[in-house]
Amino acid sequence: MRPVVDILIQKGHHAVVLVPEINWHIKTSQDCEVKFYPVSYTFQELSDHFSVFSYEAFTQRPPLTLLQNMKISYETIINTTNFVTSTCENLLKNETLIKDLETSNFDAMLSDPIFPCGEIIAEHLSIPSIFFLRRGAPFGMEQEASKSPSPPSYVPRIFTTYTDHMNLSQRVKNVLLSLFDFVFCHMLYSPYTRMASEFLKRDVTAVDLFSRASIWLLRYDFVFEFARPTMPNMVFIGGINCVNRKPLAQDFEKLVNSSGEHGFVVFSLGSMVSEIPMDKAMDIAEAFRSIPQTVIWRYTGKVPSNLGSNTHLVKWLPQNDLLAHPKARAFITHAGSHGIYEGICNAVPMVMLPLFGDQMDNAKRIESRGAGVTLNVLDMTPEDLINALDSVINKPSYKENIQRLSALHLDRPIHPLDLAVHWVEFVMRHKGAPHLRPAAHDLNWIQYHSLDVFAFLLAVLVTTFFISFKCCTYTCRRCCGRKSRPKSKSKKE
Amino acid sequence: MRPVVDILIQKGHHAVVLVPEINWHIKTSQDCEVKFYPVSYTFQELSDHFSVFSYEAFTQRPPLTLLQNMKISYETIINTTNFVTSTCENLLKNETLIKDLETSNFDAMLSDPIFPCGEIIAEHLSIPSIFFLRRGAPFGMEQEASKSPSPPSYVPRIFTTYTDHMNLSQRVKNVLLSLFDFVFCHMLYSPYTRMASEFLKRDVTAVDLFSRASIWLLRYDFVFEFARPTMPNMVFIGGINCVNRKPLAQDFEKLVNSSGEHGFVVFSLGSMVSEIPMDKAMDIAEAFRSIPQTVIWRYTGKVPSNLGSNTHLVKWLPQNDLLAHPKARAFITHAGSHGIYEGICNAVPMVMLPLFGDQMDNAKRIESRGAGVTLNVLDMTPEDLINALDSVINKPSYKENIQRLSALHLDRPIHPLDLAVHWVEFVMRHKGAPHLRPAAHDLNWIQYHSLDVFAFLLAVLVTTFFISFKCCTYTCRRCCGRKSRPKSKSKKE
Repeated sequence: MRPVVDILIQKGHHAVVLVPEINWHIKTSQDCEVKFYPVSYTFQELSDHFSVFSYEAFTQRPPLTLLQNMKISYETIINTTNFVTSTCENLLKNETLIKDLETSNFDAMLSDPIFPCGEIIAEHLSIPSIFFLRRGAPFGMEQEASKSPSPPSYVPRIFTTYTDHMNLSQRVKNVLLSLFDFVFCHMLYSPYTRMASEFLKRDVTAVDLFSRASIWLLRYDFVFEFARPTMPNMVFIGGINCVNRKPLAQDFEKLVNSSGEHGFVVFSLGSMVSEIPMDKAMDIAEAFRSIPQTVIWRYTGKVPSNLGSNTHLVKWLPQNDLLAHPKARAFITHAGSHGIYEGICNAVPMVMLPLFGDQMDNAKRIESRGAGVTLNVLDMTPEDLINALDSVINKPSYKENIQRLSALHLDRPIHPLDLAVHWVEFVMRHKGAPHLRPAAHDLNWIQYHSLDVFAFLLAVLVTTFFISFKCCTYTCRRCCGRKSRPKSKSKKE
Repeated sequence: MRPVVDILIQKGHHAVVLVPEINWHIKTSQDCEVKFYPVSYTFQELSDHFSVFSYEAFTQRPPLTLLQNMKISYETIINTTNFVTSTCENLLKNETLIKDLETSNFDAMLSDPIFPCGEIIAEHLSIPSIFFLRRGAPFGMEQEASKSPSPPSYVPRIFTTYTDHMNLSQRVKNVLLSLFDFVFCHMLYSPYTRMASEFLKRDVTAVDLFSRASIWLLRYDFVFEFARPTMPNMVFIGGINCVNRKPLAQDFEKLVNSSGEHGFVVFSLGSMVSEIPMDKAMDIAEAFRSIPQTVIWRYTGKVPSNLGSNTHLVKWLPQNDLLAHPKARAFITHAGSHGIYEGICNAVPMVMLPLFGDQMDNAKRIESRGAGVTLNVLDMTPEDLINALDSVINKPSYKENIQRLSALHLDRPIHPLDLAVHWVEFVMRHKGAPHLRPAAHDLNWIQYHSLDVFAFLLAVLVTTFFISFKCCTYTCRRCCGRKSRPKSKSKKE
């Protein structure tokens, strides 16, 4: 979101950023006004909470069914929800801050609605909203709230790892999941409907909050996502994070230049996982020492004893800038959508070690396009990793496919960052985008699916049939009666 | 389509235009290669054929029901189809031309698919297609072929003149119409499926031809059209015709400048209608002589005897340039989508006299947004026209609404002409846009609607219920049996 806000500020807009006092990334800024609000947890508690993700991801389990996999993902989400809910509660109960916001006369709210706290504030302030979303809200909320049809016959549901071509058994599971979407949604968002109803002093559902969106800025495109129905207020800004390529710092420049003809491999599991269990780290280090490439590995844990001389551990790495280097040969990633798009932008084939959430789905999308290999981080042996790296680096098809995806992705009439800025300003200028809001929002579920119409047509059909039947039987009886009379007459004769 | 082709040529592409020898508008060009092919009719026959439109439009009829209205529209379309079909037949049977095309190694076909002759050629040459379409193909073919869902509960069907807010009775009619779409489509396009099957030497349906589209360039946006589901390969280029504003020629400049404080009104019924019956022309002239504005009227018929001094008849007028003039007060139009967009671009409120086809629908869209008044050209009296002009010129709401629509329409991140050119070149560069093609194309009707899945789930449910029921009865019988035994025992006792 940052680059969008930066440009808005450059264009003379005033931006106010609401941030919990305890957070990882956002500090005071010279450019925009940052309003911090106190929360009821410490920095240690925040870090401990998110370290659960790492732990969960590396806990060995027997092979999981779809349902078990979904259960774990759901528990992880609920766990996070509880944490974020308390943050939201702290914000909504901060009367001074709310009063301050009320008098500030904002034009619009830009928020990530995955936890729709910002939406409660936007509704309270009666200002239009722009949603900035990674890859769809959980459990189809995005489809429901935007009224975008999503046929389960070819639109795979989240956490299924299915592609857009499903066999019957997969389609059965996909349909069942889509039938239960609303149950999951209700469970996930019930704390928000409670908070919203309390704060706004009227009944509010999660769909109410989500369907406020004037514009959905969706951080994907159809090079990565499977083609499916969209709505006029959806704007696709996948690859927005690949902007601002900077020259490499001297130490990284030296490292990549010394990699020789074999080039180098970038390895990062994202900002939420930087430590992994030692046995796994040693397996990975073992694999790396057997390949001819230099490896740059973002890792903050204890150094594995078997680390090869070609492997360089760093606490942080300029991922996009490294991937843009012509010597980058492969990208080992946890398949978060951010990293995936940096891989696509820079046409670097990927070895994907998905850990949780939608990362399995992301990995499947890239794999189904032949631009990467997915490994299960728990099961994989050093040989698996060596083979996967060998494939993506040396088999031409992987490089060709990622180059094709990259060419399609980069061939756009306008940069996604400019597109995002345009639509934020559009909403500010026109106080929303009501012309892009489908009339479906004004219909209930029965009306939307024309069930009342079909019931009426059925009633007409049944009545017509019944009357025709009665008429026929009556006519038959009369005809038979007439016919039988002469017979009886002839009998008499 | 012309401005798009012009820019493509400026960018160094080679364009070949296929044109029937007998036509109204396209002559040889210095910029692009025009290939004319002979047809089996004369210029007079062509003109006579289209003059039927004028005649039909001004033939007084009793008030029509939706069904009668549709029947007339359908007959008009079929009438035109027969004419255009013969043109297509002439093209496909021109062996020299087809051989020439086969050896020309084209990158893409740009065509208006409303009569899908170009598609047969594109399929024969195995080149990707870009469709350039006014306002959707007739009878939902566009939705069917692009796999774009189109819920009949809020997406009004063509020729209905409904808005996106329908009452139950309208929704019933809309659902019924959508159920019969495929029948209409089959009737309308059967000549093309026959020709295509003959020419390509295999069975081809109209949907096959239409679903070839790599990109749909649709000449509308959601300022004019009601918001509804779209697909990733649909690009909205409404207002593409409002480009290239030129200074007015001296005679028009003089005319508009002499119009004084009351300004002027532009009146045109489009290129297909320039003559109207004298009684109607006199009614219109009568109305015009009573208003304080200058009127510029495109009209080639006999001059009405009651023509006022403020009314100027012209054989042709620079419509977009006139509407762009600050003294333009109102635009009287037949509500073709071309003219409607020139009205929107230039924020001139409209009095609409729809004549045939989708013009009634277009007029309804503008009227429902409070930016114009619709009149029935057959019924209207001079007073009706005076009142309508008075409303749109003097009631502030009309000007405000068209200004709002205009502001929304013009506030776009990229000009529709540049967008169209980008997507044509995209298809040429990447040999299509397969990543934007939904997997729905690979499913049959039953699979797409998950009917096989629901049948399976129903079978499972019924079987489960049956087994449970059998188990229950069996258990009950055993339990009752056990219970009854002691009873009989006690009886014995």
